Amino acid sequence: MEKKIITISREFGSGGRTIGRRVAEELGIPFYDKELVDQIALESGFAPRFVEENGEHSPGLSRLSYAFAPQGVPGVMNGLSTADFLWNIQCGVILQLAEKGPCVIVGRNADYILKDRTDVMDIFIHAETEFKAHRIVSLYGESEKSPETRLAEKDKRRRVNYQHYTGRTWGAAQNYEMCLNSSQLGIDECVRIIVDAYKISQEMK
Amino acid sequence: MEKKIITISREFGSGGRTIGRRVAEELGIPFYDKELVDQIALESGFAPRFVEENGEHSPGLSRLSYAFAPQGVPGVMNGLSTADFLWNIQCGVILQLAEKGPCVIVGRNADYILKDRTDVMDIFIHAETEFKAHRIVSLYGESEKSPETRLAEKDKRRRVNYQHYTGRTWGAAQNYEMCLNSSQLGIDECVRIIVDAYKISQEMK
Repeated sequence: MEKKIITISREFGSGGRTIGRRVAEELGIPFYDKELVDQIALESGFAPRFVEENGEHSPGLSRLSYAFAPQGVPGVMNGLSTADFLWNIQCGVILQLAEKGPCVIVGRNADYILKDRTDVMDIFIHAETEFKAHRIVSLYGESEKSPETRLAEKDKRRRVNYQHYTGRTWGAAQNYEMCLNSSQLGIDECVRIIVDAYKISQEMK
Repeated sequence: MEKKIITISREFGSGGRTIGRRVAEELGIPFYDKELVDQIALESGFAPRFVEENGEHSPGLSRLSYAFAPQGVPGVMNGLSTADFLWNIQCGVILQLAEKGPCVIVGRNADYILKDRTDVMDIFIHAETEFKAHRIVSLYGESEKSPETRLAEKDKRRRVNYQHYTGRTWGAAQNYEMCLNSSQLGIDECVRIIVDAYKISQEMK
C-alpha cells in the first residue's frame, strides 16, 4: 500500500520531532509541527503559545483558560470546553493538511485523526529515560524540576489527552506501523528506517 | 551498542516466527523456537507437545496437567505449580542459550528473561486481524472456531502469561527496540529492517 502521510507520535525528549523533520527533508515533503500549531491558533483565535501548551495535553484544562481566549471566542465555542473546541479545530486542520498531499505530521494525535485513510504510516518514537533526560536538558535547559519529573509530567499529559480523545492506549504497538526506540537505534537509524519503508511503500503501489 | 541476541515477541498469525527464522538465516546465527521447546521439554521431563502448548500460556494451568507429567516429576517440583515449574526451567534454558552466543529467540518471554543483558535487540511483530486470520487458516487449516476467535484466544493467553511473569504490558512499545506491523510493512521489509539494524549495531561496537 502506497503511503503518503507519515504521522509521528513521540515521548517527550525522544527526538521524535527531529526525526520527523529529517524524514521530511530527505523525502522532500512538508513537515508540520510548529506550522500546524500556528494554523490551529489562527483558526481558533487563541494565542499560538496557548495552543502549543494545551493542544496535546489534558482534556481537563483549567477553566481559567477562557481568560486566554481572544475576545469573542468563548461565544463561538457553542458550549464546548476549551479543550474540546481546540480538538475540533485540530481535527479539521489535520484532515485538510492530509488532503493537500504527502507530508510528515508530528504529534497532535494525527494517527487517530487520520485513521480512516489507508495511505498513512503511523510511527511512535520512544527512548530510555536517561537519553531523554540528557536531551531535554541540552535542548531546553535546566529548570527547578528534575528532568525525570519533567519527562513524566509531559508524557502523562500526552497519554491522558490521547486516551481521552481516541479511546486508545498511547504507545500500544498495535496503533502504529512502526515503534522505534531512538536511544537504542540512534536518531540516524530511525530516520533511515522510516525513509526506506516509505520509499518501499511507493514501489508497492 | 553491539547487539548479539534478537528476541521476537509476536501476535499469533503475524508471521513473527517466519520473520525470526529468516533473520537468523540471513545473519547466519542459530534460531531457537521448536528447538527451544524440545530442550525445555527434555529438562523438565514433560512431553514436548505439552510444553509447546503451555509454555507461553495461562499461569492458571489445569490441575489435571499433573497427569501429563512424567512419573516422578511432581515430586521434584518443590511445591511449584506446573506453570511456575516450567517458567523456571524456561528462564534457565534461555539464559544459557544467550550465553552461547548470537541467536534469534522467538517467544517464551525471552525479552524479559534477558532484560539484564545490554546486547539484546527486542522486537515485537503485530499485524491487522484480516492478515493474521488469512495466515493461520493457510498455515494451520480451518477449525470449528472462527479464525478471529482463535487469534483472540491465543493472544489473550500470551498476554496473560506475559503480564503474570513479567509485570509488563504485552505489546507496549516501550518494552521493545522495534515494533513492526507485518501486514503493513510486509514480511520481507520486516526482515530487512531487523537485519539492517542488527548489522548497524555491530558497526557501533
